[in-house]
Amino acid sequence: MAKIKAVKNGTKKDVITQKGAALFRKKGFAATSMRELADNIGVEASSLYNHIGSKSEILQNICFKVANDFNMHLNDVEKKQESAIFRLEDLIRFHIHMMLDTYDEVYVANHEWRQLEEPYLSNFLNQRKTYESRLIEIVNQGIMNGEFKKIHPHVAVLIILSAVRSLEFWQRHKKNINTTDLVNDMVTHLLNGLTK
Amino acid sequence: MAKIKAVKNGTKKDVITQKGAALFRKKGFAATSMRELADNIGVEASSLYNHIGSKSEILQNICFKVANDFNMHLNDVEKKQESAIFRLEDLIRFHIHMMLDTYDEVYVANHEWRQLEEPYLSNFLNQRKTYESRLIEIVNQGIMNGEFKKIHPHVAVLIILSAVRSLEFWQRHKKNINTTDLVNDMVTHLLNGLTK
Repeated sequence: MAKIKAVKNGTKKDVITQKGAALFRKKGFAATSMRELADNIGVEASSLYNHIGSKSEILQNICFKVANDFNMHLNDVEKKQESAIFRLEDLIRFHIHMMLDTYDEVYVANHEWRQLEEPYLSNFLNQRKTYESRLIEIVNQGIMNGEFKKIHPHVAVLIILSAVRSLEFWQRHKKNINTTDLVNDMVTHLLNGLTK
Repeated sequence: MAKIKAVKNGTKKDVITQKGAALFRKKGFAATSMRELADNIGVEASSLYNHIGSKSEILQNICFKVANDFNMHLNDVEKKQESAIFRLEDLIRFHIHMMLDTYDEVYVANHEWRQLEEPYLSNFLNQRKTYESRLIEIVNQGIMNGEFKKIHPHVAVLIILSAVRSLEFWQRHKKNINTTDLVNDMVTHLLNGLTK
């Protein structure tokens, strides 16, 4: 069988992570075997183990890569001397693009994180909570400085995160709307509402 | 063992449906046995079968009861000679109250409908699609008559339905916000947006 071909600007481990994410999304983490993953990449299972220790390690790589991407982007946004509206819009757009551009990885991180082993499980869950708290703080700042309505920040963040996550549905049933319209409509509705 | 006690204004079948919904939500439909359900109600399994044919029949009762409640309410709303804003607000409030007041049933209908047997599976899925189309039509009317912004109605309905469904999360991690505030904040955010 063939060797694992590295993707452009990526390592063999990246190939395994990507193919793993695609399989875990379609079949679920528990139902996917390393043998299937090897078949899917087109190599012997033994060859996989030269690059990765276990199936759990692949899930860790997926979940922590997604967490890194979101955290690093949030760090950048928090540093900006911009309005809460600007920062929240930036974050919503980033979430939507992550859902559209790295769908397999984000889906797996959203649905399969419970399958992580300790200490990764607690660590991942804690990162999610911290991330959510930081979003809530941005909404809170916007309320305090008069940019936002006095909506409980928890409720606002729940609505925003569930809306961007609902793009999972979009990915499964592609509607005839282009991505630019989709992103702009979602941002408009979530920030400025549906009514004129 | 005891007989199945009927709930107030309800039949023994209603008791089985309610207890079934609670168990299916907690353990999942597949992992719940009729024996467990009988234990939970406090009767012999054989006594259950005097009132219900099978576990599948309980799931059918749950899913089609929920579908009935949503469809009947939508029928009423469509009949009203009111603005699209009024009708959409009415529907959002109804969705939130269904999630809060009949959480087990709505959760099971949302998560376990794939376990329905034919012809119920196709029928249920079709009712969901029709329901969604009717919501889209209300948003569309609001756009046509100038009440709503020109957001793709599909996107708006996806945001609204995912937001109300996110109350599942709310039910699991009760936050210190009273129900009235929660409902009003959600309606405000979904209709009028977060920004002032």
